[in-house]
Amino acid sequence: MRGTTLYGPRDVRFEEREAPKIIKPTDAIMRMSATCVCGSDLWPYRGIQPVARPTPMGHEYCGVVEEVGGAVTSIKPGQFVIGSFFASDNTCPHCRAGYQTSCQHRELVGNAQAPRLRVPLADGTLVATPDVPPDDLIPSLLTLSDVMGTGWFAADAAEVKAGSTVAVVGDGAVGLLGVLSAKQMGAERIIAMSRHPSRQKLAREFGATDIVTERGDEGVARIEELTKGIGADAVLECVGTQESMMQAIRSTRPGGSIGYVGVPHGVGLDGTELFFAHVHLHGGPAPVRRYLPGLIDLVWTGRISPGKVFDLTLPLDQVAEGYRAMDERRAIKTLLRP
Amino acid sequence: MRGTTLYGPRDVRFEEREAPKIIKPTDAIMRMSATCVCGSDLWPYRGIQPVARPTPMGHEYCGVVEEVGGAVTSIKPGQFVIGSFFASDNTCPHCRAGYQTSCQHRELVGNAQAPRLRVPLADGTLVATPDVPPDDLIPSLLTLSDVMGTGWFAADAAEVKAGSTVAVVGDGAVGLLGVLSAKQMGAERIIAMSRHPSRQKLAREFGATDIVTERGDEGVARIEELTKGIGADAVLECVGTQESMMQAIRSTRPGGSIGYVGVPHGVGLDGTELFFAHVHLHGGPAPVRRYLPGLIDLVWTGRISPGKVFDLTLPLDQVAEGYRAMDERRAIKTLLRP
Repeated sequence: MRGTTLYGPRDVRFEEREAPKIIKPTDAIMRMSATCVCGSDLWPYRGIQPVARPTPMGHEYCGVVEEVGGAVTSIKPGQFVIGSFFASDNTCPHCRAGYQTSCQHRELVGNAQAPRLRVPLADGTLVATPDVPPDDLIPSLLTLSDVMGTGWFAADAAEVKAGSTVAVVGDGAVGLLGVLSAKQMGAERIIAMSRHPSRQKLAREFGATDIVTERGDEGVARIEELTKGIGADAVLECVGTQESMMQAIRSTRPGGSIGYVGVPHGVGLDGTELFFAHVHLHGGPAPVRRYLPGLIDLVWTGRISPGKVFDLTLPLDQVAEGYRAMDERRAIKTLLRP
Repeated sequence: MRGTTLYGPRDVRFEEREAPKIIKPTDAIMRMSATCVCGSDLWPYRGIQPVARPTPMGHEYCGVVEEVGGAVTSIKPGQFVIGSFFASDNTCPHCRAGYQTSCQHRELVGNAQAPRLRVPLADGTLVATPDVPPDDLIPSLLTLSDVMGTGWFAADAAEVKAGSTVAVVGDGAVGLLGVLSAKQMGAERIIAMSRHPSRQKLAREFGATDIVTERGDEGVARIEELTKGIGADAVLECVGTQESMMQAIRSTRPGGSIGYVGVPHGVGLDGTELFFAHVHLHGGPAPVRRYLPGLIDLVWTGRISPGKVFDLTLPLDQVAEGYRAMDERRAIKTLLRP
């Protein structure tokens, strides 16, 4: 079997590796229907996050179960399943509280850009769809493995409610799906911060009512102006840089909330500024598993189509081009078909 | 009239100054029934926060209205009133959202350790008690001006609920009243972090079920042990140092909440640690005004006695000794009577 390995900055190879097999009785092996490249894969791809040794890539996946270990009881071969980038037992206290990405037994799933995948803790991690889906639903179902669940968590963490004024920092797939999530949650006004015409267009399609092209302090000033000096009720931080985080904090009204899901890179927060900002801050690795059943239902019944974030589809063996297109911002997100 | 002025580290003087008078038509003048020294007054007193010039001190007050400006309509001479350390109009969008300490027209009240005080925005800031209170209620009513409201905000921001496991970092008056607040909100287990016998005793009286004497990483380990490796549902940060903030963050379960009210001094938060901690963070200058009506009712009906935090009462002209006693931790909190 071939799979995707990152050797160093901008050096992605699709190469032979051992096919996955059951290691623990709680494992499942699945055949990938589709996988993709994540915005967070670009951090090591660009060399911003160091790559110490050749690293198997990919953490977004959906497909058909081929084999399960002896201790797996609810997941069965033949089912179409989706899981999160963190495997979780879904029974520990943190899972029961809805924070499966902090599961006491979590394991990172890190080699999904391949035709087959071993998923640990299969019963806790995987959620089956009502049936094997038609092909046109697969892109949307795949987003539930990470980006859609992450955008949803951003909106949920930012306490978006009916009538809220929401600002979304970041126009990557997560930010765009944050817009879609805020719309689903009943936000009245959704300000998308984007300077790319194709992303602005998709943001509007997903429910954005306003587009702000300014960034940093100018972006903050523009949000202030749009909200009559009050600030947004809810801000979704979907980037992970110092600038984007401060932009989010400074765009939020006192008492408002920030949901931050951009994996932080070099972010430091000044305690005094945060104190007087009077905001709620919540975020982290999105507990996608919590949202999977509800989001599968929304996709299955056609109420949301998050798969629209994929504007490039490639055969899996052209994965390197998939990274390049996203790195050069020629594509929002690349879908890969084995 | 004489009032309290801080000239520099440990140099508090009670000296002649001009008596306050109505400056704006929205002002009121009140005669102090009692005032006190705040834990936050100790930052400049100790020289940790620089004092550029002689500074009038005191921001906690209750007493009888003597005179009101021409635009004041709801507050009347003769009423016994309590207000917050930030005057607020109580009508702007931030006030209406319950964040009166971020009022668009807020003014710091900073010279309350004196027999008379001018309160700006009197209608928005002051809340009258049902009647002029008996003398023994005055200490408890005075705490509502800051420490009790701040402890309550810490517990509210930490989302304490019936059945919660709560940890309180800081055994000053605010921390102790955070314990009392958590108890009122129905917390099942309240872990007070304190190494001072007199404060431990009061914490237990206010509802603490456990006392932890360890601090920093050892304190975190102790909370982990007491919560079976899970962490506390809610943590109240009532100090404001780097150590206390990290202790709070690391003692909270994933998905749990921190209410932080200790004014930060040199606190910086690492974005990556905060991200993976998965906690909710909310705090800032407590919007005491929001809680005043409800807390007055709790005190008036004898359901809470927060005035117990005062373990030293002095005549106002001995204010310097009041600071000394708190600085040397001989007193938890000093009540001053004009």
